[in-house]
Amino acid sequence: SSPGPQEPITGPSLHGLLQELGQVQHSRQRAAKLFEWLIAPISPQQFFEQSWEKKPLLIQRHNPGYYQGLFSTATFDAILRDNDVQFGVNLDVTSYVDGTRETHNPAGRALPAVVWDFYRNGCSLRMLNPQAFSTTVWHFLSILQEQFGSMAGANTYLTPAGTQGFAPHYDDIEAFVIQLEGKKHWRVYGPRNDTEVLPQFSSCNFAQEVIGEPILETILEAGDLLYFPRGFIHQGDCLPDAHSLHITVSSYQRNSWGDLLEKLLPAALQMAIEEDVEYRQGLPIDYLEYMGVLNSDVVDSRRGAFIERVQNLIKKLVDYAPIDAAVDQKAKLFLHDCLPPMLTEHERALSIHGVPARWEDGDVRDADIPIKKGTQVRLLRQGIIRLCNEGNGVLLYYTTENSRVYHKEEPKYLEIDPEFTDGIEFLLSSYPKYVCVETLPCDALDDKISLATFLFEKGLLITKKPLVPI
Amino acid sequence: SSPGPQEPITGPSLHGLLQELGQVQHSRQRAAKLFEWLIAPISPQQFFEQSWEKKPLLIQRHNPGYYQGLFSTATFDAILRDNDVQFGVNLDVTSYVDGTRETHNPAGRALPAVVWDFYRNGCSLRMLNPQAFSTTVWHFLSILQEQFGSMAGANTYLTPAGTQGFAPHYDDIEAFVIQLEGKKHWRVYGPRNDTEVLPQFSSCNFAQEVIGEPILETILEAGDLLYFPRGFIHQGDCLPDAHSLHITVSSYQRNSWGDLLEKLLPAALQMAIEEDVEYRQGLPIDYLEYMGVLNSDVVDSRRGAFIERVQNLIKKLVDYAPIDAAVDQKAKLFLHDCLPPMLTEHERALSIHGVPARWEDGDVRDADIPIKKGTQVRLLRQGIIRLCNEGNGVLLYYTTENSRVYHKEEPKYLEIDPEFTDGIEFLLSSYPKYVCVETLPCDALDDKISLATFLFEKGLLITKKPLVPI
Amino acid sequence: SSPGPQEPITGPSLHGLLQELGQVQHSRQRAAKLFEWLIAPISPQQFFEQSWEKKPLLIQRHNPGYYQGLFSTATFDAILRDNDVQFGVNLDVTSYVDGTRETHNPAGRALPAVVWDFYRNGCSLRMLNPQAFSTTVWHFLSILQEQFGSMAGANTYLTPAGTQGFAPHYDDIEAFVIQLEGKKHWRVYGPRNDTEVLPQFSSCNFAQEVIGEPILETILEAGDLLYFPRGFIHQGDCLPDAHSLHITVSSYQRNSWGDLLEKLLPAALQMAIEEDVEYRQGLPIDYLEYMGVLNSDVVDSRRGAFIERVQNLIKKLVDYAPIDAAVDQKAKLFLHDCLPPMLTEHERALSIHGVPARWEDGDVRDADIPIKKGTQVRLLRQGIIRLCNEGNGVLLYYTTENSRVYHKEEPKYLEIDPEFTDGIEFLLSSYPKYVCVETLPCDALDDKISLATFLFEKGLLITKKPLVPI
Amino acid sequence: SSPGPQEPITGPSLHGLLQELGQVQHSRQRAAKLFEWLIAPISPQQFFEQSWEKKPLLIQRHNPGYYQGLFSTATFDAILRDNDVQFGVNLDVTSYVDGTRETHNPAGRALPAVVWDFYRNGCSLRMLNPQAFSTTVWHFLSILQEQFGSMAGANTYLTPAGTQGFAPHYDDIEAFVIQLEGKKHWRVYGPRNDTEVLPQFSSCNFAQEVIGEPILETILEAGDLLYFPRGFIHQGDCLPDAHSLHITVSSYQRNSWGDLLEKLLPAALQMAIEEDVEYRQGLPIDYLEYMGVLNSDVVDSRRGAFIERVQNLIKKLVDYAPIDAAVDQKAKLFLHDCLPPMLTEHERALSIHGVPARWEDGDVRDADIPIKKGTQVRLLRQGIIRLCNEGNGVLLYYTTENSRVYHKEEPKYLEIDPEFTDGIEFLLSSYPKYVCVETLPCDALDDKISLATFLFEKGLLITKKPLVPI
Repeated sequence: SSPGPQEPITGPSLHGLLQELGQVQHSRQRAAKLFEWLIAPISPQQFFEQSWEKKPLLIQRHNPGYYQGLFSTATFDAILRDNDVQFGVNLDVTSYVDGTRETHNPAGRALPAVVWDFYRNGCSLRMLNPQAFSTTVWHFLSILQEQFGSMAGANTYLTPAGTQGFAPHYDDIEAFVIQLEGKKHWRVYGPRNDTEVLPQFSSCNFAQEVIGEPILETILEAGDLLYFPRGFIHQGDCLPDAHSLHITVSSYQRNSWGDLLEKLLPAALQMAIEEDVEYRQGLPIDYLEYMGVLNSDVVDSRRGAFIERVQNLIKKLVDYAPIDAAVDQKAKLFLHDCLPPMLTEHERALSIHGVPARWEDGDVRDADIPIKKGTQVRLLRQGIIRLCNEGNGVLLYYTTENSRVYHKEEPKYLEIDPEFTDGIEFLLSSYPKYVCVETLPCDALDDKISLATFLFEKGLLITKKPLVPI
Repeated sequence: SSPGPQEPITGPSLHGLLQELGQVQHSRQRAAKLFEWLIAPISPQQFFEQSWEKKPLLIQRHNPGYYQGLFSTATFDAILRDNDVQFGVNLDVTSYVDGTRETHNPAGRALPAVVWDFYRNGCSLRMLNPQAFSTTVWHFLSILQEQFGSMAGANTYLTPAGTQGFAPHYDDIEAFVIQLEGKKHWRVYGPRNDTEVLPQFSSCNFAQEVIGEPILETILEAGDLLYFPRGFIHQGDCLPDAHSLHITVSSYQRNSWGDLLEKLLPAALQMAIEEDVEYRQGLPIDYLEYMGVLNSDVVDSRRGAFIERVQNLIKKLVDYAPIDAAVDQKAKLFLHDCLPPMLTEHERALSIHGVPARWEDGDVRDADIPIKKGTQVRLLRQGIIRLCNEGNGVLLYYTTENSRVYHKEEPKYLEIDPEFTDGIEFLLSSYPKYVCVETLPCDALDDKISLATFLFEKGLLITKKPLVPI
Repeated sequence: SSPGPQEPITGPSLHGLLQELGQVQHSRQRAAKLFEWLIAPISPQQFFEQSWEKKPLLIQRHNPGYYQGLFSTATFDAILRDNDVQFGVNLDVTSYVDGTRETHNPAGRALPAVVWDFYRNGCSLRMLNPQAFSTTVWHFLSILQEQFGSMAGANTYLTPAGTQGFAPHYDDIEAFVIQLEGKKHWRVYGPRNDTEVLPQFSSCNFAQEVIGEPILETILEAGDLLYFPRGFIHQGDCLPDAHSLHITVSSYQRNSWGDLLEKLLPAALQMAIEEDVEYRQGLPIDYLEYMGVLNSDVVDSRRGAFIERVQNLIKKLVDYAPIDAAVDQKAKLFLHDCLPPMLTEHERALSIHGVPARWEDGDVRDADIPIKKGTQVRLLRQGIIRLCNEGNGVLLYYTTENSRVYHKEEPKYLEIDPEFTDGIEFLLSSYPKYVCVETLPCDALDDKISLATFLFEKGLLITKKPLVPI
Repeated sequence: SSPGPQEPITGPSLHGLLQELGQVQHSRQRAAKLFEWLIAPISPQQFFEQSWEKKPLLIQRHNPGYYQGLFSTATFDAILRDNDVQFGVNLDVTSYVDGTRETHNPAGRALPAVVWDFYRNGCSLRMLNPQAFSTTVWHFLSILQEQFGSMAGANTYLTPAGTQGFAPHYDDIEAFVIQLEGKKHWRVYGPRNDTEVLPQFSSCNFAQEVIGEPILETILEAGDLLYFPRGFIHQGDCLPDAHSLHITVSSYQRNSWGDLLEKLLPAALQMAIEEDVEYRQGLPIDYLEYMGVLNSDVVDSRRGAFIERVQNLIKKLVDYAPIDAAVDQKAKLFLHDCLPPMLTEHERALSIHGVPARWEDGDVRDADIPIKKGTQVRLLRQGIIRLCNEGNGVLLYYTTENSRVYHKEEPKYLEIDPEFTDGIEFLLSSYPKYVCVETLPCDALDDKISLATFLFEKGLLITKKPLVPI
């Protein structure tokens, strides 16, 4: 299914693509199209059926410019110059020589002259969370995260020619290795056994002798993509003739059915105990005599009855499992992980950021926010809010005030008057259609305008037309 | 099934009974016999079938001396005199007048003159955990706890004539009200609704108007017993002509199937995640769109599939549920809750306490612990130890160094060399039979003697004959 | 000494002044000159003799442009637009109406449209630490802090015409109110009593009736300055015809002799105890009988002797007081409080920031840091480092990696090999003269170059000429 | 001044002495007499002038029975049998062989058979705080603590013949080694240098080669006393022919002038800052330039002025030093350290413990506390209470509810209505005289009776005659 070795696979430039995506109304479709471009010419359907969480996928495009504009060593150099990049926090200096993996981070700010000195001496440079410094990476990931419903993160890796920066290991995330500059020799190995298939946690560094033979070996060139699921061991090293720069986009850390059950089971049990007396009945007064690990081989009919009772109670938990509420707990965590949305110029103009309120000529000008019954509004993006019932109230979690630095801000939420819940649900279900403020399902017109103004002021709502013609 | 109103129900005196129980070899049978006496003439079988966790049971014995010797106001007076009883910690001074429940505890030690002054002024006196001060109550409960496999606790209540000390409420424990002196008018009410049947937690104080009509109303006299399950509302008040002293024996706090599942489910899930890749597979990338409380009414076939998958994973937990290990966790908590065993003179003589090692005439005498291959040994009681696997080791939890004050000591355990596990299991399964040290399943004779000596020195083992003839 | 009412007092523009100051070699002189401009035409000598910590000083310049460029409402508007300004953290919305002071901060980011809506409704806007957002304010304060040897902070206050935003109160800092736009009616009141002269802590809000009559009442116009010491109560309100914008520059919070003694006394006592047995001798065995508050009126000759002994020991502390070490503790705190230095273009070119190491055409270029024995170097500023002995080592505290946000970073320090101490002292005492690397008092030439390179890489040293001619 | 070698020094037996002391009215005199007996035939005056905190004192009495009854190995054996003595908490098993000091504590309760086994194998047994188990030691120390005005503690040491249990070291307390049984070879060495004279903290274990030659070497026999001050290195070992039992009574831990100043100086400085503007004035703006360790050798007239100013402020602290309040802080700590008083039978009869309130024949009897205006009362002991001003209230600290286990209880205090302060002071100053309740300086008779009853109920007051004739 892959094209001949010499035919380049082409596509829109990243810049053009992002422009184009700005026209896509639905943020979820925008994410899908971006992902399509990322893995083209493989279709998403094919990818999710054949590769995702199953096996590595290599896409060789013979088109070094395919990912151009996403990130470059020149950008990295500029970031060092203009930002407070800290060793050990934002940047790791590493080496892997003769089977020994070392980290060489000094303390404090990573200034270009010092960083480049390490590089010249054969060290690899891993920038953590480049989205905090690069607007393009931020833009890219903030769109993509809606495709996965799970945090999309990234690191960049710059490796000098003829060196390797990391030991073989596997990660706890789905990895998309995007080759940006130069080339790199990659070897990917299958999970070593069943329990390392789709593992919960990353591995330690492995010695070469314990990882077997690679199931995939290739030289990744600029414009190529290499995907592999969590649990697949991998290592990459530079050929003597070229440095390498790649960015690894990651997702699906702790996003399994088991992770959902970790939220769900305690709630299900609590609910079962409250609602079903069978869970509140006392244990048999003699159970300690025949149950317990030391009794596990004892033949005693009471054991069978006890075990059956426990198993029935476990199975009956399905009747009490608040699955949707547990999903909302997961959603809440995801919203905290999310990058804040990056607004296009057009979106800014239609949002609170576009309201022309300003100081001019010694006074405030145009400070009105003239949302009226006829104003047409919609949510800025679908994935930026989530309503959760908590305790006795309703909380609206949102991403617009998140930081580009991971978890630098606490989860952001607003307490919502329960009577506004319907209005917010209506906005969610209408998206991406614009709706008239007067159609919001609130009691009075005043409430409709209040709700719309409240969400607009928080940057969550945009209007169809600029509020104030400029 | 209850005798005529005027025929007294008789039985051995408590003193005689405890003597007698000292001859019972098996501590579990000892507990059963004590419980039989407690609820006679109802048989334990009948009790557990008809009353336990189901409904109140009243036993009127017309025999004021039945429980004599367990506790008395004179004992209470002596305790105040001789012990550091602290208001608010060991003793509560309460009143319930005109629907208002008050606590009158001053700070500091409860000296008799001050306590009796409160009593004279109409206050009730609740002594918490009298087993910490009364050897008889300790003895009584330390035997009884093996009957329940759950902590047996107690409070005593002394109420002046014509008063009431507590508002109507229900508790979270099975209650055995043992009338010791005087008499008390009791009213018991059924649970108010299904969710208050066998409740997890005690109630607040209720107003009279919300509890309905009593299902049982009686005057309890000395020698009588009133049992009611957790969740049954109750109140007792003194008639104008007599004070009342009773002791309430309690058990089965947080000892339900649900409490076991609280230990079991996290372990089951962790094991399932580790062993079964289905729990580690990623959630659908789009699940946040159709799941969540706001989507719970949405018709979407993906919802059905999602819910079915979750339900299957819940049900499949039964394959991974380490039931016996969870029971051991419960057992461990129980052993921490347990009163230390109270040794009879005979038991002392056969235990480490009976070894005649002593200082005499300016030197140590008889310090040998001559446990030999032919020495016959057994555990002091069945319920005083429990082997638990934890982390990578085996821990032997034990009760002999617990305090009579609830949880004053941390859980006590000894790390056991895994090669000794079989020997300890052998001792557990042989109980109450004595076994020769040489029959212990250890590799070498030295090990057999080491193990026996180790357990003997910790007070867990007794010998059939005194080690040193006296 | 103040000029006639209509003659404007002129001076260099702020922009020109900052340019000029860039030519001043010694950072301490630079600070002095900036301060001179701030309070011109009053001389610093006169100011410190007559006003500082003593009484208010009003400078009316009839020159609205005097402070132009420092900050403006337009700048404030731009800051709101471009930065994540948070209500309650960076911006307070306040009002003072009919004697009631209120704060109106919502949660989250302060977007211009919302902020200006508050302003239109009569609220005052206090921006905290504008130096975190405004490069000019940062530049201004980072120079000025060396004048005071104590943190120089700032807030800006924007007040609508005809309103007042704050109740009368006094602060715990020396305040320089710099009127930037519009005008404001100010009333200043003397301390109410001796204990409120130069107070340690700020006051609560006062009611008008408890503050007496103002000792100074004026209308501050753009270009004017009003100084008053801590403890002087003050309030400002806008006339009906003009809004007001001022910035208050503050210093000398917790910078008194008492604050130094708080560091000094525990160290002095510890040293005295270690070195002088008189402090280790036991108290008289009977001292509790005649000393203590209840005995303070008792006539007992032992009291006199006891008190005399204590007083002598207090006085003798002067022999053990490590004054210089305590000053270093204060200095360390000051360096943590400091703004990082703002480098001029020229300074950047001579510092690590000017080293041309970069990524270009696919490789690292000019990564050498060619500091040689003949390279002439000096510290970037005098006030950016401080050597402190701590425990068994020598720590070099420095300000260049501080944040513009107060205490966002932990105190920054480097452990120094004691053999480098002389070299650093030499650089400190040579400042602002450039010295040859080979003249550094280190053992070997290698050490000299190491030390210079180390400090240069940390941004603390600059070279006389650019290291690499560009 | 010491008697001839063969003439025994006699005195009352401990039992007789304690009886006798029960007749001494003033608890302070009681303490003095007990101390006199402890060190007889040396007089306290001579002791405090020549030995206390100065040098060792050896008293050889040739009277093995002198201290009989205080403690014995038989008592120790009984304590092990009857009490929950815990290894590592109440008992240490130690050895010192070939220059190596080891601790051999197992976990858990120290049962006699196990303890004696250690002893037989040459280990020393140190019982910590025997006063928690031995009523006589408690009685002894509870009297003695009033002599020192500082906690009187104790350990006992039982050493097998021919062994040594501890390495040479010095302690941080004044030590009175009381030989009870057998004999021990002691060597005492002077402090090694000035800074180890009366040290604040105990030393590590010393090697033999660093401690020099003993200044005192002797064989202590039963009935002998050896005193040495803190800082004096010591070691004791048993001769081959006899075991040794001694008790070391200790006092004056952290009770020096320096310890008082640690309480006093922060309070003095805070007061000075509040009352004297000289402490609140700002530091010179340029002080960081010429002060600091690096400037300490710089010649600069500003340094002299600065130092002089600091020194004057230190000296002036004497004007603000709240010496009596600091003493009360020390007193408060001492009261927390104190053992609770041990009451004689006679004292019990006159205290709240003697009130005949009791339960008898089914009712409360004699519950009145008939304190009337004519009742004659006094404090139980002088040293059991202390009034302290704290915050805005007056607190009465007291020792009667302390535990015999060190700091097992929190400091005990009662909030006192300020109007009762005079009454309590009156009781303190009248002690040991009995005073009529009506002479208490309270406003109304009711208040007088209230105060007396309140203190009586807390066990702090006794009456001259039993309240109720028995």
